[in-house]
Amino acid sequence: MDQRERAPVQQSGTNLPKVGRYNQAVVLDQIQRSDGISRVEIAAHTGLTPQTVSGIVRRLINQGIVREEGSSRASGSGKPRTGLRVNAAARSAVGLHFDAAQLACAVLDLLGRPLVIRRRPTPPGSDATQVVAAMAELTDAALTEADVPRDRVLGLGLATPGPLDQELGMVAAPPSLAHLDRIPLQHMLAEATGMPVTLDNDATAAAIGERWSGAGRGVANFAYFFFGTGIGGGLILNHQVYRGGSLNAGEFGHLSVRPDGPECYCGNRGCLEMFASPSAIVGQTRRRLAGQPGSSSLSQTFAEDPASVDHAAIRRAAAAGDPVAVAVIDEAAAQVATVASSVANLLDVDLIVLGGHGIGHVESRYVDVVASALATRPVSRHIRVVDITASPHGADAAPVGSAALVLHSAYSPQLSALLAD
Amino acid sequence: MDQRERAPVQQSGTNLPKVGRYNQAVVLDQIQRSDGISRVEIAAHTGLTPQTVSGIVRRLINQGIVREEGSSRASGSGKPRTGLRVNAAARSAVGLHFDAAQLACAVLDLLGRPLVIRRRPTPPGSDATQVVAAMAELTDAALTEADVPRDRVLGLGLATPGPLDQELGMVAAPPSLAHLDRIPLQHMLAEATGMPVTLDNDATAAAIGERWSGAGRGVANFAYFFFGTGIGGGLILNHQVYRGGSLNAGEFGHLSVRPDGPECYCGNRGCLEMFASPSAIVGQTRRRLAGQPGSSSLSQTFAEDPASVDHAAIRRAAAAGDPVAVAVIDEAAAQVATVASSVANLLDVDLIVLGGHGIGHVESRYVDVVASALATRPVSRHIRVVDITASPHGADAAPVGSAALVLHSAYSPQLSALLAD
Repeated sequence: MDQRERAPVQQSGTNLPKVGRYNQAVVLDQIQRSDGISRVEIAAHTGLTPQTVSGIVRRLINQGIVREEGSSRASGSGKPRTGLRVNAAARSAVGLHFDAAQLACAVLDLLGRPLVIRRRPTPPGSDATQVVAAMAELTDAALTEADVPRDRVLGLGLATPGPLDQELGMVAAPPSLAHLDRIPLQHMLAEATGMPVTLDNDATAAAIGERWSGAGRGVANFAYFFFGTGIGGGLILNHQVYRGGSLNAGEFGHLSVRPDGPECYCGNRGCLEMFASPSAIVGQTRRRLAGQPGSSSLSQTFAEDPASVDHAAIRRAAAAGDPVAVAVIDEAAAQVATVASSVANLLDVDLIVLGGHGIGHVESRYVDVVASALATRPVSRHIRVVDITASPHGADAAPVGSAALVLHSAYSPQLSALLAD
Repeated sequence: MDQRERAPVQQSGTNLPKVGRYNQAVVLDQIQRSDGISRVEIAAHTGLTPQTVSGIVRRLINQGIVREEGSSRASGSGKPRTGLRVNAAARSAVGLHFDAAQLACAVLDLLGRPLVIRRRPTPPGSDATQVVAAMAELTDAALTEADVPRDRVLGLGLATPGPLDQELGMVAAPPSLAHLDRIPLQHMLAEATGMPVTLDNDATAAAIGERWSGAGRGVANFAYFFFGTGIGGGLILNHQVYRGGSLNAGEFGHLSVRPDGPECYCGNRGCLEMFASPSAIVGQTRRRLAGQPGSSSLSQTFAEDPASVDHAAIRRAAAAGDPVAVAVIDEAAAQVATVASSVANLLDVDLIVLGGHGIGHVESRYVDVVASALATRPVSRHIRVVDITASPHGADAAPVGSAALVLHSAYSPQLSALLAD
């Protein structure tokens, strides 16, 4: 089971062994995100003494995780200065993302860079045993293709659309995966692969991937909007994954953008997902195509087979400048912008990241619309405008994030580990 | 200057002296919120070893902050078991809240309980020197009335409507206090009183007061809605005050509840404050009284002097069941409920607290309307329904919170202090 970043009911103290492990993670984090950093710089950045830094670096080098770089840069004093780098090949992590349509597997090196990404359709209508077998096969094929020695693989991350029951290691009532409800996937997958399995929802996994090797590296506070089957969210606050009291924070898709609007399946009214989910976008586009024949590059396709005008086709058309598709996407983005403004007003984050396969081809449209809102709406814009960017992981955000769950669990400086009993 | 709970740009390490101070705060926090707790229970709750707990408790007793309770309860084994209590009279804190209308001063004991609360009108139209003189006088009078020896007073907390420039210790462009813009109030007040001054915005101060001695005691994650001149917010996440990257988190009043609505002075559209601030409530009530003469217990007053139908009069009328006032307050509460649902969906908090003088007399109306939304709208309600309560501090939330700033700064277990350089 992953070390879950949940606040203990009581506020815990800490002790020396925990401090040692935490400080080691802090040092590795510095090296991981500033390749070539020196011991002196690490001490300056972290507030640790040079002695503590040296001792930790020695241990990391002995473990083979960190190496001194061959060439040394000269410092101002003329004295040579040894840079430190993560030995990216020393460890590896593998991750699986699955939803109703697709299984995707990523193998990452220790810097969080993808070595291999493989995909296959989710076995349709199959039972849990078949799904797990397909997962294990895909994992095996990806690891073989990546040519990573198995003893260097830290573990397997599994990311799924929420909600999850993390205590029991299973998905709970996923609308699109009803046949897998309350199946102990985590346990079954660990049995099938012989690897420890870390389970999380795909939005949180994508945010962790972004923190590890994407736009969120070293950013203290950011919100990640994950566009998948729905719209999920991940929060990194004060450098830590924030999960909430019942591990259900980040329901961006169910913030209301029209409180007096129609009722959502979740029970709330006028939720973001009702206006910006893939099915909402498809419905809106088809209505317009039906109402205005010939207005769009999609019109003929629509006339021949309405079902072929799916979310991917609409995004591709919008990317090519089709006026109907552009209008629908920009309207969806405007609703996302309202929620992004609320997140900025509530949490005063430094950065908002948009990612996931659900905005493939139209990342820049979403970024532009949200950026414009962030420049004009949050109260704190007079102090600083919140940054916005599309995830560099693109459509691979979820599989990369699933493997990053393993790196995060093994190596990130987590206050929950510093303070846990 | 207060130890600000801002994430460092870099993720910091920690060391032994910081750990020692942090663990001492953790132990005191346990005693503060569980009067009569034993050393064994503290060790069990915090994960600290019995030896560490004993050493810290000895120091706290030597400092006079903690005492062993006279009577000892028998434990299951029949062995007597010594309870620990905060020596409430050992230290004291004083706080000032001020806004355009009123100065309020609170003196608290070490348990955060108010000993004295004094109020006076804010000197109208006066310059900063006169305001500071009035503050110092009021502080002096309150401390004299409380009969607290000056050498036991830890310091003075100052809470004002935001925004603040905490670096410089001044308020920045407060809409209702324009003549005090960019005046170094913190420094002037320290000069005038001879006490160290801790400055914060009133919503955060009220949340800290709630954490110290109100409904937020021991709650890991809660959101505080502060009803004052506007609607501010304070966030406690994972037991820590969350302030955001530019110290501007918690702008609950400027979350949009009608994104296509009219523009707010802040630049956003359809903000909560446009529907639920005191001036919005007064405007809405007067429009209804003008449109429906004789419909309300306020009608005659309104006919004689419309200006006398102010926010306090409306709240009193609603508390007495007047139909027009009840309708207006419940509609405002419904907008608050939308934002509370968004906060629950985004942050998955354990508790929402409503407080501040701006909901005096109608706390239960607000609580009922918001409770109903929290039971039906957030996604996580199937796992647990978010608790809601009115602050037990009532109309004293802001002055109590301002003094609690001092206790918090001196004694709360703050991760920022554990990790700061």
